[in-house]
Amino acid sequence: MSQECQRQRVCFLLQVKPEKLAEYRKRHREVWPEMRAALSEAGWHNYSLFLREDGLLIGYVETQDFQGALSRMATTDVNRRWQAEMAEFFDGVNGSRADEYMVPIPEVFHLP
Amino acid sequence: MSQECQRQRVCFLLQVKPEKLAEYRKRHREVWPEMRAALSEAGWHNYSLFLREDGLLIGYVETQDFQGALSRMATTDVNRRWQAEMAEFFDGVNGSRADEYMVPIPEVFHLP
Repeated sequence: MSQECQRQRVCFLLQVKPEKLAEYRKRHREVWPEMRAALSEAGWHNYSLFLREDGLLIGYVETQDFQGALSRMATTDVNRRWQAEMAEFFDGVNGSRADEYMVPIPEVFHLP
Repeated sequence: MSQECQRQRVCFLLQVKPEKLAEYRKRHREVWPEMRAALSEAGWHNYSLFLREDGLLIGYVETQDFQGALSRMATTDVNRRWQAEMAEFFDGVNGSRADEYMVPIPEVFHLP
């Protein structure tokens, strides 16, 4: 089995504050290179974020072990700094880091 | 540029009727082989459906041209039969085929 086949496909949802959509988009066109590198090193592959007009944010990522990928990011300094800047963009995270609210939605169908 | 790089990543949302979640899951464990083959032939790759407990359905698919992939499916007899069976599962599609309501959500971030 190839490495790619062993990956989980993970989808999670977050809620961006409607008044912060434009700034959220801007920040994500300019994600720090060291943040991108840290995600890759922590096993985040083919990672996309999709943002609906009302602020619903859909995350999709492929990884061998999502909880492990989250945990590895949590140990990095760059993630701490990134999540600190991002916290104010989200509704429903109670002032915490958004990555603590990335709860996987069950996959019910897959076609390779 | 590889073929994979030329693919768009598309996310869309639909709403499954809460009283039909269990049956929806069951049907998607048993998608007809000819429906799977038709999707592949029409250019649907790495296609996943994720279903939240409240019925929110998140679709993720990679394809070179999403409108083309939808159009190609629309010409197939198997899709007509499949969508006819699926129509009753969805809210908000006004009795139409759900695939006419697959509106892409803008992607705001991607990490390969």
